[in-house]
Parts: sequence; C-alpha cells; structure tokens
Amino acid sequence: MLDLAQLDRPMAARLARELEEVKIIFERQLASELSAVNGLCVHIEQYRGKMLRPTLVLLSGLSVLGDEPLTPAHRTVAAVTEMIHMATLVHDDVLDEAEVRRRGATVNHLWGNETAVMLGDYLISNAFHLCSTIGDPAINLALGEVTNTLCEGELAQLHHRDDFGLDEATYLEIIRRKTASLIGACCQLGAQLAGAPTATTAALGRVGIALGIAFQIQDDLLDLLGNEAVVGKTLGLDLSKGKLTLPVIAHLSEASPAQRATTLRALETGDATTVRTALRDSGAVAYAQTAARRFVDDARAELTTLPASPGRVLFDSLAMSVVARDR
Amino acid sequence: MLDLAQLDRPMAARLARELEEVKIIFERQLASELSAVNGLCVHIEQYRGKMLRPTLVLLSGLSVLGDEPLTPAHRTVAAVTEMIHMATLVHDDVLDEAEVRRRGATVNHLWGNETAVMLGDYLISNAFHLCSTIGDPAINLALGEVTNTLCEGELAQLHHRDDFGLDEATYLEIIRRKTASLIGACCQLGAQLAGAPTATTAALGRVGIALGIAFQIQDDLLDLLGNEAVVGKTLGLDLSKGKLTLPVIAHLSEASPAQRATTLRALETGDATTVRTALRDSGAVAYAQTAARRFVDDARAELTTLPASPGRVLFDSLAMSVVARDR
Repeated sequence: MLDLAQLDRPMAARLARELEEVKIIFERQLASELSAVNGLCVHIEQYRGKMLRPTLVLLSGLSVLGDEPLTPAHRTVAAVTEMIHMATLVHDDVLDEAEVRRRGATVNHLWGNETAVMLGDYLISNAFHLCSTIGDPAINLALGEVTNTLCEGELAQLHHRDDFGLDEATYLEIIRRKTASLIGACCQLGAQLAGAPTATTAALGRVGIALGIAFQIQDDLLDLLGNEAVVGKTLGLDLSKGKLTLPVIAHLSEASPAQRATTLRALETGDATTVRTALRDSGAVAYAQTAARRFVDDARAELTTLPASPGRVLFDSLAMSVVARDR
Repeated sequence: MLDLAQLDRPMAARLARELEEVKIIFERQLASELSAVNGLCVHIEQYRGKMLRPTLVLLSGLSVLGDEPLTPAHRTVAAVTEMIHMATLVHDDVLDEAEVRRRGATVNHLWGNETAVMLGDYLISNAFHLCSTIGDPAINLALGEVTNTLCEGELAQLHHRDDFGLDEATYLEIIRRKTASLIGACCQLGAQLAGAPTATTAALGRVGIALGIAFQIQDDLLDLLGNEAVVGKTLGLDLSKGKLTLPVIAHLSEASPAQRATTLRALETGDATTVRTALRDSGAVAYAQTAARRFVDDARAELTTLPASPGRVLFDSLAMSVVARDR
C-alpha cells in the first residue's frame, strides 16, 4: 500500500518497525504443534501484502499519540485485523475458485477447497483467540460485531449474484459491510487504544469507512481492468462470478434500452471484452473512478479535523494511495 | 440425545426449560437486519438436533449447583457452543459434499458452497460475539483455544485423508481435537461458571473429553453401518472421502497380508459392501464398539467422584446414551 521505504521520515520508519513487531505476533499466534498445520500457515504468509489494516491501526494510534509510544494492544489488534482479513482472502478464493493470489498458488488450488475452508476457520479462530489475550471484553465485542457485519455483507453479495437490477445504494451498503466495516474498526480501535476522546475516535472511524469504500471500488476496478501480472492475482472474477460492481451498475442504470440489452447479453455470455469496452465508452468506468476519489476526499477532509502531526501527514499519503494504486 | 420427555424427573424438566431459554438466545443472536441472512438462519435451525453441547454445559452446572439456579452465563455459553458446533456442521457438509442433514437439504446443496462457507463464518463470528457479551475475558480465551484445537484436528484429518497407514493413536488424537475438545470445554465451563472447585472442573473436563471421543467413534460407526432413514443425514461419506476411522484402522493393522490387500483394494475402488463385510467379519467393528464403550465407562467412573445428586444421575444417563444411540 504505502511504500514506507520511499517515505524518508522518522514517522514512516517508526511505522515500519511497528509492522515488523506485528508480523512476529502474527506468526507466533499461528504456530501449531501439528506440522501439517504449520506448513499451511507458512504458505499463506506470502499472501500478506499491503498490510493495510494493521497499518491503519498503528497509524490511527500514532496520529493520536504523537511522540508517545503505542500500546502492546495496538500491535495485537493490528495482527488480529490482518488475520481476519487473511481468513476472508482464503475463503474468498474458495468462493471465487481463484488460482493465484499474491503471485502464489491459492490454498484451494494447491490443497483443495476442504483445506482452504478449514484453514480459513483456523485463521478466524486464532484471530479471536489472539484478541482475547488482550483481556478487554470491549475489544472482543467490537471485533465480533465487525466480523458479523462483514459476513452479512458477503452473504448479501452472494444473494445478489447475477442480479442485474442491483442499485448503487445496495452495492455501497454491501461493500460498506464487507470491506469498510473492518477498515473503519481498524482506525477506530487504533484511536481508542491510544486514549483518544470520543469525537476523535468517531472521526477516525468515519475516515476508515470512507477509505474502505474507496478501497473496494478501486479493487473492483482493478479486477475489471487491471493487469494480472501487476496485480498478482486472478482477475476478471467479478464478471465471471456474476458479482455486480459500480461501473456495471452505473452503466446499466444509465444506458439506452438497446445498449443495456447488448451489455446484458455480453454479461450473460461471459463476453468480458464487450463489457469492458461498453463500460469505458459509456463513461461508467470514469464514474466509478470519480466515486472512489470522492470517498478519499471525504476521508481526507475528515482527517483535517485532527490536530496536525507527522502521523496525520502519513495518514493523508496513505489515503491518496488507496485510489492511486494499480495493484 | 437424551429424550428428556422420557425422564419424568424434576431435574430433566428443569434442563428442558433451560434448553428452551438457550434456543431463544441462539435465535436472537443470529437475527440480522438483512432478510437474505435471516432466511438462511431459519433454514439451519432445523439442524439443531441433539443439543448435546448446550445440554452438557447446563448439566455440568446443575451437577455442581444442585438446587441453586444456573447463571445467565451458563445459558449464553450453552448457545455459543451450539453455534460453534453448527458452524462446523455447515462447513463439514461443504467438505463432505453432503446433501442431507437432519432430514433437510444441506446449505451447500440448496444455495451452493459459497453461501455455505460464508454462513459457517457468520455462525463462528456470532459465536464469538455472543461469547464476548458475557464480559469475561477468561471465557473468550478458553473458547478461542478450543476452536483453534478443533480446526487443527480438522486440518490434521484432511492431511491424513487416504493415509491407509494411519495408526490408532493418531486417529484418537485427531478426534480428541476435532470433537472431544469442544465437548470437554462444555463440561469444564459449565462447572467453572457454577463456581466449582478446580478439582471438580478438571474432573468434568475429563468426563467431556472421554464422552467426546466415544461420541465420535459412535458417529463414525453410524456413518459406516447406520440406516440413512434413521440417522437422517447422508451416510457412507467417510469411506467415499478417504477418511479413516477406528474400525478401518483396527482392521488394517490386524489383518493378514492377503486380507489387507483385499480390503485396501475395496477401499480404493469404493466398494463399500466388501469393506463393511470385512470389518464386521474380522471383529474390527466390535473392537471399535468396545473402544467407545470403554471411553464411556471412563467418563462414568470419573462422574462417581462428584457428590451424588439428581444432576449426576441425569449426566450418567446421558453418558450411556452416547453409545446406545442409532442416530
């Protein structure tokens, strides 16, 4: 996500050091007495790419704390959020029948769906177990609520598969649950653990929600238009799995009856080239890009309500990178 | 499991009333704002059959408390354990490609694997969320440990699929993790929440582990030899999915080289009739039945270390029913 090595600032260096600690907690938590389980965990560690969620937990904490040190709970919650995210990746790959993730073979592709389902469960279970080690019931409750919401979002998305009448508001509600709820919780908990006042905690929660929505729209755009070699995972899955995304929804709602019929036929027959051309030519791709940028603008505006600090500057760079990325 | 209506005793009536409360907590927890999610939850409520795990939480509490009332946490933990169990059923059905569960169609059969994976995740998430409402970090930690162990058992079982050299000790370790760990935790937590002394809590934990192992051996025997109409779910899956169980392991380790070769060929070609006959004729089925009974005997012997009470009497009936059941 953020190329910390490119940001030659003390705050970026501090964040990079903290992320190394998070990785150690993550790996220690997943270590099992059973070698069969450890082999799987070593494999999925290559999926750990952007570390967006732990970065946001730490950055929210740093934005509030300034020069004060983060708490051990920050690092634990950061590892927990990455573990929850990793579980959704492993289960999403089963759902999507994906073969490649982060340039490596997916668990389902290598060891079958059964192992992928169980490994995802192992990750979810360990996330809750790790979270419980903090000993604060409020954090467990908050994360339990978030994962409930996340699963509801996934179930709603499956329910609306091949629903070509899906409207933008329902789509946004689905991705708010599926993606933005966890990212919002990362920002909120990072601030809360730093002892931030309620107003700041709520503001950072809103920053996370807006960034999460923008992140998902950008992810959907990459799945539609990205370069598989650059993104490093199987693409085009949304179209092939009947998952409607913002450019498709915007296009279908604005198209002439004739154009709509042509695109629907292309969607139903799996003619991705025709769909892509229609979405580009009708301005639907640009519409989705603008929508993503607007959510980032909202997040950045909300950030300006916090006191100026090196943490806030770094947070602002990260916000911009959400829509600037090509992988 | 226990036919409480047949047990005309005040303690059985009390247990039945408490179980009704647990069902209400269970349903209230799963209620979602999204109708698509609620439809799925209503469907899986028919899977709630024996209620073995909540029964054990309550019964362990009652064995310790006598006439004193159970705590609200007993009912919550009881619902949590059933929710964890239900999640494993939904995901197991994906693993097994099962079509029938409790006389109804499985989620994967009706709505596809994707929805079954996500619904299982929703159940796991809600189990942890519900557990967190108790506000006692020790319970969250204990249940997180148990679900880690449970997933490790499932992963180890998948790892040993089609491993015809699997030995009895490894099999017992797998089912201890996969099945007995949760059942042991039910008994232990039921006692702990009742304020039992450490020795009693540990004894009830051991009762649960022994019953859990016996329960799984009996389940495996039913999958091998049961009547699908009586059991109410797809049977014969262990053989078709290469899951080795105690009768098969005992048979292969004791058979003559010629008999072993014949059985291995039948296992590899999926000739279930030949396998069943070989396991019955060689005494391997009887061996597994005896093993299950021995674990029940261990549990019952451990129960006699508790003070005599109506709860203990009921617990003893339940222990016997674990191997007496045909569904």
